[in-house]
Amino acid sequence: MAWPSIEQHFSKLGGKTMSTGKLTLTAIAREANVAVSTVSKVLNGHTDVSPSTRRTIERLLADRGYQRPRGARRPGRRTDLIDLVINQLDSVWGLSILTGVEEVIEEAGLSLVVSSVHNRQSLTRRWLESLLARGSAGAILVLSELTAQQRDDLGRRNLPFVVVDGVSQPPPDVPSIGATNFTGGYAATEHLIQLGHRRIAAIGGPEQLQCTRARIAGYRAALDSFGQPYDRSLVRYSNFQHDGGLRAAGELLGRPERPTAVFAGSDQQATGVYEAARRAGLSIPGDVSVVGFDGLNFAEWTAPPLTTVRQPLHEMGVAATRTLLRLINGERLESTRIELATELVVRNSTAPPSGPFA
Amino acid sequence: MAWPSIEQHFSKLGGKTMSTGKLTLTAIAREANVAVSTVSKVLNGHTDVSPSTRRTIERLLADRGYQRPRGARRPGRRTDLIDLVINQLDSVWGLSILTGVEEVIEEAGLSLVVSSVHNRQSLTRRWLESLLARGSAGAILVLSELTAQQRDDLGRRNLPFVVVDGVSQPPPDVPSIGATNFTGGYAATEHLIQLGHRRIAAIGGPEQLQCTRARIAGYRAALDSFGQPYDRSLVRYSNFQHDGGLRAAGELLGRPERPTAVFAGSDQQATGVYEAARRAGLSIPGDVSVVGFDGLNFAEWTAPPLTTVRQPLHEMGVAATRTLLRLINGERLESTRIELATELVVRNSTAPPSGPFA
Repeated sequence: MAWPSIEQHFSKLGGKTMSTGKLTLTAIAREANVAVSTVSKVLNGHTDVSPSTRRTIERLLADRGYQRPRGARRPGRRTDLIDLVINQLDSVWGLSILTGVEEVIEEAGLSLVVSSVHNRQSLTRRWLESLLARGSAGAILVLSELTAQQRDDLGRRNLPFVVVDGVSQPPPDVPSIGATNFTGGYAATEHLIQLGHRRIAAIGGPEQLQCTRARIAGYRAALDSFGQPYDRSLVRYSNFQHDGGLRAAGELLGRPERPTAVFAGSDQQATGVYEAARRAGLSIPGDVSVVGFDGLNFAEWTAPPLTTVRQPLHEMGVAATRTLLRLINGERLESTRIELATELVVRNSTAPPSGPFA
Repeated sequence: MAWPSIEQHFSKLGGKTMSTGKLTLTAIAREANVAVSTVSKVLNGHTDVSPSTRRTIERLLADRGYQRPRGARRPGRRTDLIDLVINQLDSVWGLSILTGVEEVIEEAGLSLVVSSVHNRQSLTRRWLESLLARGSAGAILVLSELTAQQRDDLGRRNLPFVVVDGVSQPPPDVPSIGATNFTGGYAATEHLIQLGHRRIAAIGGPEQLQCTRARIAGYRAALDSFGQPYDRSLVRYSNFQHDGGLRAAGELLGRPERPTAVFAGSDQQATGVYEAARRAGLSIPGDVSVVGFDGLNFAEWTAPPLTTVRQPLHEMGVAATRTLLRLINGERLESTRIELATELVVRNSTAPPSGPFA
């Protein structure tokens, strides 16, 4: 692409507009022994600064606690663009969040830039630079992680962001949206216990994920509440996809004393449990009960229709975007963390245990 | 949002950069009795022009055949943004195309703006204005229709676009990507005929859609090839969703002489056919065979796993984006229409007919 970038146009303005902070860019430039325009280039995510100079300036900005003055918008730099970064586009789960985000963005007359980190779960420097370069008004990060450095970078540039289903528990000052994963894990397990199951396995998503931990904690708390022992060997972790569920359930259902019920970490994983049961010659729910998580459309059309914990994914997208727009408008949030309610949807994949292992 | 828009910044430049066409903006301005800057505002999609003035100027631009000179990029107006407009975000079908688009956009270091027309199937004036205002480099339109006027508007502004699965057959000069829908419809029907079916119903998507027409034409051609009569009463049209399939199949399977096989217009529709069969107490494939269309992931996990015609949706997204990037770079296309191959995937929802109606 050869046309002059918006960057080249604005680089002329950069230096002038940034001199109102308590700590002036001039002071930083003097300390770093560079031109003021170089400091402003770093601040604005321009790429034509050598890596070592960039590092020096970034360290100085951080050390000296440079904060872009609130309300001092960069003239002409802010656009009507909102960024959505999603761990993986290729899942109905992410799609449901996306539809919620898009709904609010459209209502507000803004435009949505969508990108994926393709399961890398952390954002690249290039992403941050491109976000700043195009003058994004704010960002929504879905199941993707910001490093502390990146959070600082965004903060220093007054670029608001909201985390949806953060990989790890975000620091208390980071606005985040999630679902009541603990309660969902509890409800799924309670349902199985009340049906009479005593050997209940759980498959989580990747172990380091906040949502996985909360669900498994809910599973464990339900066992505790009903006086049932927690058996670590009945818990598996895998990816959220079909193949992860198939592998984990294959191991679990191949045990000499197999579980009579499986609480899966996602609906996609649950289809993998279905397949593992089929391969083992086990019927659902006759031989093994299965509960999913997410409540995606297709879970109604599996055979048997899947009992699952519905997450309000569309609504999570809506809430995240509304929160972001409030931050962009300089409003104060009453709470930085919002958890929307999950709900157990009982269909036909769960029944009282029967057979030799009941 | 109160920050000054990028528009306000560029409005100063507008007039100067557009005077190199054969037909100058000055001439248009003189004829319309307005300032040159007003003409350039209309051309650039600014909104601060009265509707009647805008109409007058647009008519003049069209009547006089104004063409922005090729290669004369608007300095600073082009960004690294590519627009994807999709009929409906809330479907795995669209998601699969989106992942292909995103892959190429990311490779190229560009950014993707995603919007939905929410099944309105035609783009609003606001959308076009916002696209021009933000200086989009080009657009990909998925199953959404441009009016002739909008095509002209984009053309006059030299804004390249590519249509994926156009609602209607696009004019020959409009670059478009699709799948071999005719061949897919033929293959599905041929498969059922070869299994021994003689009363084969077809459910299309919305009747006006190009892809629906091609698939039903393929269905009809296969019947012809095998010397089977075409029975118009066995063909239904509905939306591509579960409820559309349920309704259409409910009618078809309730006929005194019911069909022994149903060729559905999408995998989602096929789940509706499954549900209609279940309600009618019919087994699949024992009493009725079902073929879907799309080849989405979940079709493997339905019970029974669905025989379907796979569309290379991801690849269609890739091809559309590569084509758009070539247009943006001023390359000439060898062909404005590309059709990627569909493929019949035989699973367990189809079998030879049996029972009283076989």
